[in-house]
Amino acid sequence: MAPIRVTGARITPVAFADPPLLNTVGVHQPYALRAIIQLDTDAGLVGLGETYADTRHLARLRAAAEAITGLDVFALNRIRASIGSRLEGDTTAVGTAGMITSASVVDQVLSPFEVACLDVQGQSLGRPVSDLLGGAVRDAVPFSAYLFYKWAGHPNAEPDRFGEAMDPNGLVAQARRIIDEYGFTAIKLKGGVFPPEEEMAAIEALSRNFPGLPLRLDPNAAWTPHTAVKVASGLAGILEYLEDPTPGLAGMAEVAQQAPMPLATNMCVVAFDQLAPAVTKNAVRVVLSDHHYWGGLQRSRLLAGICDTFGLGLSMHSNSHLGISLAAMVHLAGATPNLTYACDTHWPWKTEDVVKDGALAFVDGAVPVPTSPGLGVEIDDDALDALHEQYVRCGIRDRDDTGYMRTVDPSFEPAGPRW
Amino acid sequence: MAPIRVTGARITPVAFADPPLLNTVGVHQPYALRAIIQLDTDAGLVGLGETYADTRHLARLRAAAEAITGLDVFALNRIRASIGSRLEGDTTAVGTAGMITSASVVDQVLSPFEVACLDVQGQSLGRPVSDLLGGAVRDAVPFSAYLFYKWAGHPNAEPDRFGEAMDPNGLVAQARRIIDEYGFTAIKLKGGVFPPEEEMAAIEALSRNFPGLPLRLDPNAAWTPHTAVKVASGLAGILEYLEDPTPGLAGMAEVAQQAPMPLATNMCVVAFDQLAPAVTKNAVRVVLSDHHYWGGLQRSRLLAGICDTFGLGLSMHSNSHLGISLAAMVHLAGATPNLTYACDTHWPWKTEDVVKDGALAFVDGAVPVPTSPGLGVEIDDDALDALHEQYVRCGIRDRDDTGYMRTVDPSFEPAGPRW
Ligand SMILES: [Mg+2]
Ligand SMILES: [Mg+2]
Repeated sequence: MAPIRVTGARITPVAFADPPLLNTVGVHQPYALRAIIQLDTDAGLVGLGETYADTRHLARLRAAAEAITGLDVFALNRIRASIGSRLEGDTTAVGTAGMITSASVVDQVLSPFEVACLDVQGQSLGRPVSDLLGGAVRDAVPFSAYLFYKWAGHPNAEPDRFGEAMDPNGLVAQARRIIDEYGFTAIKLKGGVFPPEEEMAAIEALSRNFPGLPLRLDPNAAWTPHTAVKVASGLAGILEYLEDPTPGLAGMAEVAQQAPMPLATNMCVVAFDQLAPAVTKNAVRVVLSDHHYWGGLQRSRLLAGICDTFGLGLSMHSNSHLGISLAAMVHLAGATPNLTYACDTHWPWKTEDVVKDGALAFVDGAVPVPTSPGLGVEIDDDALDALHEQYVRCGIRDRDDTGYMRTVDPSFEPAGPRW
Repeated sequence: MAPIRVTGARITPVAFADPPLLNTVGVHQPYALRAIIQLDTDAGLVGLGETYADTRHLARLRAAAEAITGLDVFALNRIRASIGSRLEGDTTAVGTAGMITSASVVDQVLSPFEVACLDVQGQSLGRPVSDLLGGAVRDAVPFSAYLFYKWAGHPNAEPDRFGEAMDPNGLVAQARRIIDEYGFTAIKLKGGVFPPEEEMAAIEALSRNFPGLPLRLDPNAAWTPHTAVKVASGLAGILEYLEDPTPGLAGMAEVAQQAPMPLATNMCVVAFDQLAPAVTKNAVRVVLSDHHYWGGLQRSRLLAGICDTFGLGLSMHSNSHLGISLAAMVHLAGATPNLTYACDTHWPWKTEDVVKDGALAFVDGAVPVPTSPGLGVEIDDDALDALHEQYVRCGIRDRDDTGYMRTVDPSFEPAGPRW
């Protein structure tokens, strides 16, 4: 087979409606941003990728697309090196509401191109992407019900279809609704919004109402180590894992020594150079992978192998995303033997997409791994146009949960552990 | 593309002439053993693999071939799991003269099948195996001149074409000869044969005669930590790295603290479960990978990624091998960005092979990465038959360097650090 050379990439920023989901740094804006990559090749095959769309990231994506033009879609080592050279010295990660600041810029920028290259590889070979990752080890990938405290609707707008969830009852109703619809078999609550006692009460209510379902709580480092230990002790026997209770490796290590459940993270271990210190300090027992900042699917496999080798559990993180990302997540998770936790996804919160319907479905809380060639999803051109129009119109150019919260509560202060 | 299913494997033990190369546990027997795997598929494509041929290993290979029959050559995760289930409880690694005893049996047995599957994948896609490993990052893979103390010939046989090398002069002549022929740009001496002072004198002679060429010394753990530190100090500024001076992680860690050059190993870190302790103890700075016991090429990539992540250097180990293994080593090394040391190979000592001439050549000490589909090597059926006949005739069924040495020196004792 002749090389399949990249001839360019169409990079389209899109905005899709997002409910007012609360977290410790603020609240989701009315629209979430994504960049859609359509990687063109001289074989006529088009590969898809999806990533953040913050202004600085878009500029880097355009530079990267230029840097890899002419390279073979199988030359993933060289593609990474070319992007690395092009971005040398450019070092601030973006796109995650300030919660994942120390990720590798190169791996963040590489990710959608790597996924798109694997999509082209798969299409050219007539093989699903999972086959390029060692082959699926499960037919479907289980996800968790990802609960959020939320307002009834965005300020000055009608209540949305999900309704308000500002207390244990609201969250139980929210869980009931999305579990009825999707069949999820695990529950994650995004915390760090209310004082810890209230969030503990919410977890206890979920535990009573959904007996047998593994539960997780993720306050995004909103607590001091002291508070974190108190919450951890209070939720002994109830939580499957406690995610990022406190900032930094040292604090996590301190909490880990006393917490009765494993600590998980997608904040203090978000890049390869943070793994050795984390292992040395015994700071975490579960790493949440995310191909969007770990450098794509092949490097996420490397992360999985490292977790397996060093006795760390492996789960999967999610930001607000569309169907291209879900497809990539499912191929990756499906082909990762040691990914034994249900993965996170914001999928239920989303009402719009850029991919054609039908390729991805939830069955009993799990998404069957697509078996058609490549990622198995296709762009809906009209939908892509519409969501790009929405991007242009909505005026949001960088994710800013804190700034948006301040339009409602000017005194809002996200800094430091709040409790 | 429809699945390409394994329909069976032809496993052929072969013996090829090997000179009397000395090491700390004895001397190479007149024939080295290898098992050649021809993996048959329902697509009619045949994949090649090569591994050890000791009796117990052959039995395991046959069991593994049975276990993976019916699986798709892309289903590498499932292939590993099937071999793992079949071999459960079977735990002693073989095939390396007792020097690599704690390798993973599953990974040792998986290796030739994984390589054969990648060969079939590559053939079916029209792509070299390196493209299935992220793509070559170099056009040719540099190897080192692998020097051995040796007798003029096997006992009761004519001197071989390589001649005797029992002192510094002999080794310098040996180096001159194979560097003239192959163009190697690095030198490795297998030590542990003579008292350390003699081997230090040999390294010093090589350093004087081949200025600028990186030098390595590998006594296969023949020294106490005390002796190792003395040698290391004496060879400061001369050795690129010192390989396995002493047995075990604890001893290596002790030496590492005082040695002026990096310590390398293919004895105390030979399986994934040994990486965490090695990192914790700071015992080694360079790991020699070897796809024959690290579980094939994909898992050797994982090892490479781990080394990169944990700040370890990466080199490549060799046992006596034939052309299928060399091809696999070259694809792997060619596609491994952080494999920055010249690789080891026993190639110059070998006068017979099972592959057709022409696919593999040394140019200035390096082997160009084959660009034809798959591994890029083909079986010579007559040569395979002849070397199998030789296996049947020679009577050797398990590698036994010590037993062979004792036929010459009945008092020979390989145990423990000798100096
Ligand atoms: Mg999190
Ligand atoms: Mg060695």
